[in-house]
Amino acid sequence: MSRRGLLTGGAAAVGGALVGVATSDALQQQKQQPQQQPYGRQTEPFHGNRQAGIDTPPQAAASFLAFTLHRDTDRDAIGRMLRLLTDDAARLTAGRPALGDTDADLARTPARLTVTVGFGPGLYRAAGLRSPVAALPAFPIDRLQPRWTGGDLLLQVCADDPTAVAHAQRMLVKDARPFAAVRWVQRGFRRGRGVEADGATHRNLLGQLDGTANVRTPPGAIWAGDATTLVVRRIRLEIETWDKLSRTDKELAVGRKLDTGAPLTGGKEHDEPDFSAVDSVGLPVMPDFAHVTRAHVSDERIRILRRPYSYDGEPDAGGVPDSGLIFASYQADVGAQYLPIQRRLAEQDLLNQWTTPIGSAVFAIPPGCAEGGWIGEQVLT
Amino acid sequence: MSRRGLLTGGAAAVGGALVGVATSDALQQQKQQPQQQPYGRQTEPFHGNRQAGIDTPPQAAASFLAFTLHRDTDRDAIGRMLRLLTDDAARLTAGRPALGDTDADLARTPARLTVTVGFGPGLYRAAGLRSPVAALPAFPIDRLQPRWTGGDLLLQVCADDPTAVAHAQRMLVKDARPFAAVRWVQRGFRRGRGVEADGATHRNLLGQLDGTANVRTPPGAIWAGDATTLVVRRIRLEIETWDKLSRTDKELAVGRKLDTGAPLTGGKEHDEPDFSAVDSVGLPVMPDFAHVTRAHVSDERIRILRRPYSYDGEPDAGGVPDSGLIFASYQADVGAQYLPIQRRLAEQDLLNQWTTPIGSAVFAIPPGCAEGGWIGEQVLT
Ligand code: HEM
Ligand code: HEM
Repeated sequence: MSRRGLLTGGAAAVGGALVGVATSDALQQQKQQPQQQPYGRQTEPFHGNRQAGIDTPPQAAASFLAFTLHRDTDRDAIGRMLRLLTDDAARLTAGRPALGDTDADLARTPARLTVTVGFGPGLYRAAGLRSPVAALPAFPIDRLQPRWTGGDLLLQVCADDPTAVAHAQRMLVKDARPFAAVRWVQRGFRRGRGVEADGATHRNLLGQLDGTANVRTPPGAIWAGDATTLVVRRIRLEIETWDKLSRTDKELAVGRKLDTGAPLTGGKEHDEPDFSAVDSVGLPVMPDFAHVTRAHVSDERIRILRRPYSYDGEPDAGGVPDSGLIFASYQADVGAQYLPIQRRLAEQDLLNQWTTPIGSAVFAIPPGCAEGGWIGEQVLT
Repeated sequence: MSRRGLLTGGAAAVGGALVGVATSDALQQQKQQPQQQPYGRQTEPFHGNRQAGIDTPPQAAASFLAFTLHRDTDRDAIGRMLRLLTDDAARLTAGRPALGDTDADLARTPARLTVTVGFGPGLYRAAGLRSPVAALPAFPIDRLQPRWTGGDLLLQVCADDPTAVAHAQRMLVKDARPFAAVRWVQRGFRRGRGVEADGATHRNLLGQLDGTANVRTPPGAIWAGDATTLVVRRIRLEIETWDKLSRTDKELAVGRKLDTGAPLTGGKEHDEPDFSAVDSVGLPVMPDFAHVTRAHVSDERIRILRRPYSYDGEPDAGGVPDSGLIFASYQADVGAQYLPIQRRLAEQDLLNQWTTPIGSAVFAIPPGCAEGGWIGEQVLT
């Protein structure tokens, strides 16, 4: 060994020791603080050609707010309302207080807050415009309640923190209420952020992995230019009768395994179901009337982007839960994409026996806006 | 340098290089995955001398469930019910499915689930025992609604994930309902886990840091042996009128700064307020009728442990929010600790103008149990 080698060796040894110390310190710290960097200050960009809250990875908490315009809210007034809403949405999503924010301290942790604005048929009517959307036709499975149905204006408020959602909701309702009455509010949740790895499929309250065969990177199917549409269905889960099914029957109703989410034709969660596979007696492994079989769309261009949340209200005195899904889906064209699936499902879907649509609304989602602009300017001016 | 030293140096150098690689890999990984280890599988111990969910660091989501015993639920039946509840609570908090769990997959991510069991006066009555607790006396500030008041049995279900709370709630309600009717259910939330650093004081929906002067490491004050008591008050926040106050007036009402939570006598959040300080004109800096001045208890032995959650229901058509606090406090003795504070507050507290108690209930919290035992065995056998 040369003198030089020795020296190098020695230096490396010292460096090595230091690195060793640093590492064990880091591990130590990690052990004491298994917590990540707090994510409260994380933001999602508000301004852009397209609105946020659509292909944004779903946040943990959501509030869907629908409004009925006051009778005297005309095209001008709608424009004023949307300027106010846009301005405050831009502030709040950036972690800044709303313009007249009376509880500014709650604004500082937006936790990936997004505010998505939608227009129902009534808004177009009030503005003297032709509506690009209409209520869905009635389906025999529907048991729609007026209190969860329709709406002239929609705000979808999502964040990884329910306090951030509550605060933003309050500020935005204050902006809107001179122009519109609150029609319905639906609070929803998915897994708390960090409960599972980011991007893991969440489970709904029937215990199913929900979102597996979703559009991953929203392609053309979602956007018509920079606009899209949103269908919101409030779907009650008949958990009491669902509970009576065997595990096998539950899996047959959907066509996927409960634990892994894999299709009944085998494999892993994200494997494609094989709809032609038959069992030993010649019956299809994916039942013809399974939810997935009926809902499946192979053509990527006409798929829908599902972005549902769970709801869980108060059980009644007898302990029957009031649980369900705030089913929300985005698609370029309701008629070409959503309706064919919904028609097939309404006609035949094993899952129908344990799910009841109790609310329904359709909204056009106009393009986003640049700084200084406002959501709806392309529609209303 | 001896031959031995050289060898050692060389070995250390190699070791050092390896450690170096490991470190930069770890950093790399951390950068790609700013996310913490998913915490869904974290558990809080269920068995022990004392029940969990009391000095457990507050989880992000909670459900408070109160039941009314059926008329024919006698001492024996209560014991059977508590055995069922204990058994399933022990399973669920450990991340295992309940005994008859119909959605077992939802049980695998308890996210620090705790289930805390409380007994109201009616449970003792039904068991032929003298109750150690009684409803609070009526206060002039009260506007109690029967639907949020009283209860024979309480389950406090908390977890860092609302889906875990919903699932546990459903399983436990199924256990209880042959014996009792659901009386009320109050869902609450605090900041999502990870929004802020662990242990940071949360903000309630008035934007106040709430929990600053809390008992940190619960001392004798909380426990009477291994038992304690729980007061649950549903307190509506009159946010609409609160909104009309200036920031200064809001701070005077409480006696603390809104941004930092520091007392008005200055300093940092956790500094002690100086109740003797006066301003230039001789007025006390901490107003005599400020919430903190009136609520303050200097004797650690008679403090209470506050463990409140926010609630946020649907705003009405006019946009008036339905927001408030599920005020929950634990103390060894309601009469010696809670009541004196509540009496002082009911008599004089600036905050009263913007808060209205609309529900109230008191429960005895029996000791915990060992594996194989059940919550309530010391009380009922
Ligand atoms: C409460 C009601 C519903 C429940 C519980 C439910 C549940 C599920 C589940 C568990 C899956 C399989 C996993 C996945 O790919 O996400 C699925 C797939 C799907 N669902 Fe639903 N769903 C409901 C309502 C609806 C509605 C109303 C629609 C649209 C009208 C819909 C459209 C779809 C589609 C398109 C798929 C993917 C099918 C495929 O290509 O494999 N679902 N749903
Ligand atoms: C909606 C109703 C209430 C709100 C918004 C509220 C809010 C607050 C706030 C902001 C503080 C100061 C920060 C802190 O130490 O946590 C505080 C302190 C306190 N509150 Fe309340 N509170 C409410 C009801 C109650 C009730 C019903 C009680 C008990 C009967 C109570 C007992 C206390 C106590 C003991 C303190 C600590 C005082 C000290 O020693 O500094 N609070 N509360």
